[in-house]
Amino acid sequence: MENNTLRINGQRLRESLETMAQIGATPGGGVQRLTLSDEDKQARDLFVKWLKELDLEITIDEMGNIFGRRPGKNNNLAPVMSGSHVDSQPKGGRFDGILGVMGPLEVLHTLHENNIETERPMVIVDWTNEEGSRFAPAMVSSGVWSGALERDWAYDRTDLAGNRFEDELIRIGYKGAEPCKAFPLHAYYEYHIEQGPMLEMEGKTIGAPKGILCLHWYDIYLDGTANQVGPTPMEGRNDALCAAAEMILAVNDLPERMGGNMVATVGEIQNYPNSRNIIPDKVHFTVDIRSWDDDLALAAWDKVQQDFVKIAEQRGCPIRCEETWRVNHQPFDQRLVERVLQSADMLGYSNLKMVSGAGHDASYVNHVAPTAMIFVPSIGGRSHVEVEATTWEDCEAGGNVLLHAMMESANESD
Amino acid sequence: MENNTLRINGQRLRESLETMAQIGATPGGGVQRLTLSDEDKQARDLFVKWLKELDLEITIDEMGNIFGRRPGKNNNLAPVMSGSHVDSQPKGGRFDGILGVMGPLEVLHTLHENNIETERPMVIVDWTNEEGSRFAPAMVSSGVWSGALERDWAYDRTDLAGNRFEDELIRIGYKGAEPCKAFPLHAYYEYHIEQGPMLEMEGKTIGAPKGILCLHWYDIYLDGTANQVGPTPMEGRNDALCAAAEMILAVNDLPERMGGNMVATVGEIQNYPNSRNIIPDKVHFTVDIRSWDDDLALAAWDKVQQDFVKIAEQRGCPIRCEETWRVNHQPFDQRLVERVLQSADMLGYSNLKMVSGAGHDASYVNHVAPTAMIFVPSIGGRSHVEVEATTWEDCEAGGNVLLHAMMESANESD
Repeated sequence: MENNTLRINGQRLRESLETMAQIGATPGGGVQRLTLSDEDKQARDLFVKWLKELDLEITIDEMGNIFGRRPGKNNNLAPVMSGSHVDSQPKGGRFDGILGVMGPLEVLHTLHENNIETERPMVIVDWTNEEGSRFAPAMVSSGVWSGALERDWAYDRTDLAGNRFEDELIRIGYKGAEPCKAFPLHAYYEYHIEQGPMLEMEGKTIGAPKGILCLHWYDIYLDGTANQVGPTPMEGRNDALCAAAEMILAVNDLPERMGGNMVATVGEIQNYPNSRNIIPDKVHFTVDIRSWDDDLALAAWDKVQQDFVKIAEQRGCPIRCEETWRVNHQPFDQRLVERVLQSADMLGYSNLKMVSGAGHDASYVNHVAPTAMIFVPSIGGRSHVEVEATTWEDCEAGGNVLLHAMMESANESD
Repeated sequence: MENNTLRINGQRLRESLETMAQIGATPGGGVQRLTLSDEDKQARDLFVKWLKELDLEITIDEMGNIFGRRPGKNNNLAPVMSGSHVDSQPKGGRFDGILGVMGPLEVLHTLHENNIETERPMVIVDWTNEEGSRFAPAMVSSGVWSGALERDWAYDRTDLAGNRFEDELIRIGYKGAEPCKAFPLHAYYEYHIEQGPMLEMEGKTIGAPKGILCLHWYDIYLDGTANQVGPTPMEGRNDALCAAAEMILAVNDLPERMGGNMVATVGEIQNYPNSRNIIPDKVHFTVDIRSWDDDLALAAWDKVQQDFVKIAEQRGCPIRCEETWRVNHQPFDQRLVERVLQSADMLGYSNLKMVSGAGHDASYVNHVAPTAMIFVPSIGGRSHVEVEATTWEDCEAGGNVLLHAMMESANESD
């Protein structure tokens, strides 16, 4: 197994990440590369140029997903794929998504320069609009690809300025001809920063999530009674913001009340008329509940919804709760998860079997193909912020694990 | 005292209010006549036209305050003044402010058509920018007039679009030549809707506030730590919105904890980055505290600020508290307050001595001249909303009280 000595070029991986980080670079040291923006187009153009330099066969599908295929010895066998996304959050970091695209690019570069041929073909992919922060929801193009979401529904999503997804896809020149439809895959690996503090806290270099937590999103709408604050006695007020404040704290206490194996968060709130001398009469806020245990997450929602109804009644503030999005927990392919851990062992990197709290394109790919992920530590657990960072050593380590996991899968005959 | 039988023309008062309500009318049945907007100019133009029809001597000062003077028998005596404001809140009501301008206009109309001459001159005034919702703070032009605020500072206030107050005043053609400076007044009466529920609750037609509550404004800034919500455990989070939620409830509980004789409100909140899957890392909210007892209001702030510091520490969210505005409680001239109540008695209107929770231009005028106010009921206590309303009967009743209070003051020789 002479291949065990093969390593990616960490310096070249770093350079590709640093070059990409210049596209949409923010003064705060992060990147803003919203999906289907001019910056997304620039990053895609550079990515495609790099794919061409490796003689890959490039395909762009009707959702703008970009695939680069490296032939194997037997091109009738299902390929091994890896990828992530080049789009970012507004004021996002320089690693989220792009590491999972530059990582497999470096893997293919390493194989290319070493003239290594695998049994199966290998494919690298950039999924359109993973973040969902310009066009909701997130992970929409891997969703369409896997058959979980409708293409035409996705096309009709609009951003805050009213631009349609499809129109923007055409505008930047990335609406391809290929149908967006799953093709047979032997294995899919997604390489990503952890976006949480566990690896750093445990002092491990490589994480292999056994799967992704379930993700339940709710939208809450409260009505109150607006009045000039001065002349309106405290008794008899219907203050929608006070009702929301009680509910926010009920959400925050939920994991402890349910036994801990979940997270629950209010990230977004709108208050109306939002004037310092008028009692708030309309509040909207969001609830995000995640757990490995789908039933626990549903039970938590039941409980907190009962709290909400009680609070709304006490405050005289009519409430409406919408169930916006529910994705069940996704257990990955345990054989591939073990392979990631074994590759890390073989390479001498400390490692941890864990869960992923964040959603990833891997979640949808997992519907139709054996899937696993490779995590590297996020410094301070920070993500979706400009200061998001991972050491270059850890980026290289994750790249080596990806190299060996992909090679091993690609050399399997069945 | 044949004058005791004199009454205003309630129908004409109603027509003037309905005509004014067409300027800046909103689909929801209210008005939007932001200060120094095109709608404000239209309302001013109509007001000035009506002043001319009554042969009043018109003066516009350098803050855009419009004065209409009706001579008395002895024009060396200090005049009696009454007025309020034609500007409105965004999506405000059809009575707030404008009733206090159309009311004295109707009084002068009544005197005019009955050829009644008073000893002292009478003056009607429209104060620029009472609301403060386009250019903060509120009541700025009566503030400059009374000497409490600086003219040039007021000129430099900007709206959200960056427009300067003075530039907008010039643009609508209402920057006058007259210095904005208090002149001797024998009495000032401001006629206004109550903007609260007390008169309706007590079943009274006329309210005479003994004064205006103190008004203390604070701005609170919290820092948290932004992170992707899924992978970040509940323990160790620094969620700025949760900290704010606890603080909002502490503010709401404050009046009960302090013994009740006050109101405390959070009307405004901004949350950042305000994304459903990111832990909030910045929150700004406001605190509004009002009481007849200045010391109680200050003690309440001390107490809640201690709560804030404790909550901020527990949540690991650094806090900054700014004291934005403090106006002490304003006791009105008790002789004038009694005159309002006696006029109501004489006219057969039920009445109530009360306090004003809302600020008014009368608050600043009270610094330099004997001042009182006349309140009429707000249906449901609603104000600063499009559905704000007062019955036409009550509008007429308040106009009659204003007529007799003004006449009595204007016929005093000293």
